[in-house]
Amino acid sequence: MKWMRARLNGQELFGTLDGDALLVFEGELFGEPRPTGQRLPLADLQWLTPCRPGKMLALWNNFRAAAEKNGWAVPAEPLYFVKTPNSYAAHGQAIAAPPPEVGRVAYEGELAVVIGRQARGITAEQARDHIFGYACANDLTAIELLNRDPAFPQWTRAKGFDGFGVFGPVIETDFDAATASVRTTVGGRERQNYPLADMIFPPHELVARLSQDMTLEPGDVILCGTSLGVLPMKPGTEVAVEIDGIGRLVNTFG
Amino acid sequence: MKWMRARLNGQELFGTLDGDALLVFEGELFGEPRPTGQRLPLADLQWLTPCRPGKMLALWNNFRAAAEKNGWAVPAEPLYFVKTPNSYAAHGQAIAAPPPEVGRVAYEGELAVVIGRQARGITAEQARDHIFGYACANDLTAIELLNRDPAFPQWTRAKGFDGFGVFGPVIETDFDAATASVRTTVGGRERQNYPLADMIFPPHELVARLSQDMTLEPGDVILCGTSLGVLPMKPGTEVAVEIDGIGRLVNTFG
Repeated sequence: MKWMRARLNGQELFGTLDGDALLVFEGELFGEPRPTGQRLPLADLQWLTPCRPGKMLALWNNFRAAAEKNGWAVPAEPLYFVKTPNSYAAHGQAIAAPPPEVGRVAYEGELAVVIGRQARGITAEQARDHIFGYACANDLTAIELLNRDPAFPQWTRAKGFDGFGVFGPVIETDFDAATASVRTTVGGRERQNYPLADMIFPPHELVARLSQDMTLEPGDVILCGTSLGVLPMKPGTEVAVEIDGIGRLVNTFG
Repeated sequence: MKWMRARLNGQELFGTLDGDALLVFEGELFGEPRPTGQRLPLADLQWLTPCRPGKMLALWNNFRAAAEKNGWAVPAEPLYFVKTPNSYAAHGQAIAAPPPEVGRVAYEGELAVVIGRQARGITAEQARDHIFGYACANDLTAIELLNRDPAFPQWTRAKGFDGFGVFGPVIETDFDAATASVRTTVGGRERQNYPLADMIFPPHELVARLSQDMTLEPGDVILCGTSLGVLPMKPGTEVAVEIDGIGRLVNTFG
């Protein structure tokens, strides 16, 4: 099932994607949603983020190929930061470039894990019951800001501008990360194409490990990190993150 | 006015503090709340955090005395991280110690600024109209975790365990940061006592600067950073953060 949210005439709706239409549901996405029987053409709708995360955690250095190329040691434990709620943005949304003094902004195509059931101190085996599904994500980053201050790396700020946390278009509940790839195209040119099997801490392991530190709530999102091919974008660029079996997340930047 | 939230028989209430009682209001705290006429003794209530922040930003290196003592350069711009929603904790709440492998946990007594009206790209002069009020905060930190990985400082994780973002007991709407001090006592012994006038970026400046990076929403909180006297706590400790004119925020740790 592919779950999505959308807006129609100021009203927020959710349901499942069925070809070029939304099958509307009522109730709670992470509870027991019921179909209303209503079917709306996508052409009439504005996409929203497929859920509203309380927190969006995001991994650094979680792919072997990138670690090797950049000379980073394989980490002993997941290394992560947070993207603030003002950064959440949906499929199709135009992402404004920050002021020029912020410097260049890079895309990072990633897999997003969406939590469906509260998780605290669980094992990797139990994680299956706490993951609701998976989405595409674009973890935008102000790369020049990150290390501008020599004493303090500015992860929160560089990752947290309005619109820098894009995810969607849908949450796919039936997905196997072991066999899929992430493909990022910028202005129609392929810039990233990496297998999710190269992940250092795969999704179930991430959910288990992070749940030792923090209680994870329904709707929380974990971005699994990116691999090779990250580059800054020119303003006016169309950027798309595509994952087989989930979909294609498209935005314009700047 | 001192605004607070509390729970009574599973019901969440909010209103103003009046001596040893809560004057209950209805409506929205950041809208136009109306008094119901109901007056409840505090003794019957369980304190909640005075609001539910969408994000809690927190400053590093924002006091001159601490910068000088630690040999840190005075920063050219505010340097900040985020505390995740699972960390939010209220006055009176017992804060569980993380597992032993996480290492020691320190208190940090701080002033919290609460946003009342959406702020995006505002000036320090305009900030007055966007600040709702002020609270006491304890920015708990797993100090050994912070730099355990040599390649990546773990701010999000070290600051984000359940219960590590304590604030309250109330939000005071009439407060002058220029004349007040923050006093932290641990097991009854004074450990911090520093003037807020020593801040490098004072509240109005912080709100203005951070609003250039991120849209700030009603209920968002900015912790202004701490000064001298930070030490790890022993399990079973009572820790209190007191600010003249706001109140005293008391918790037990471990």
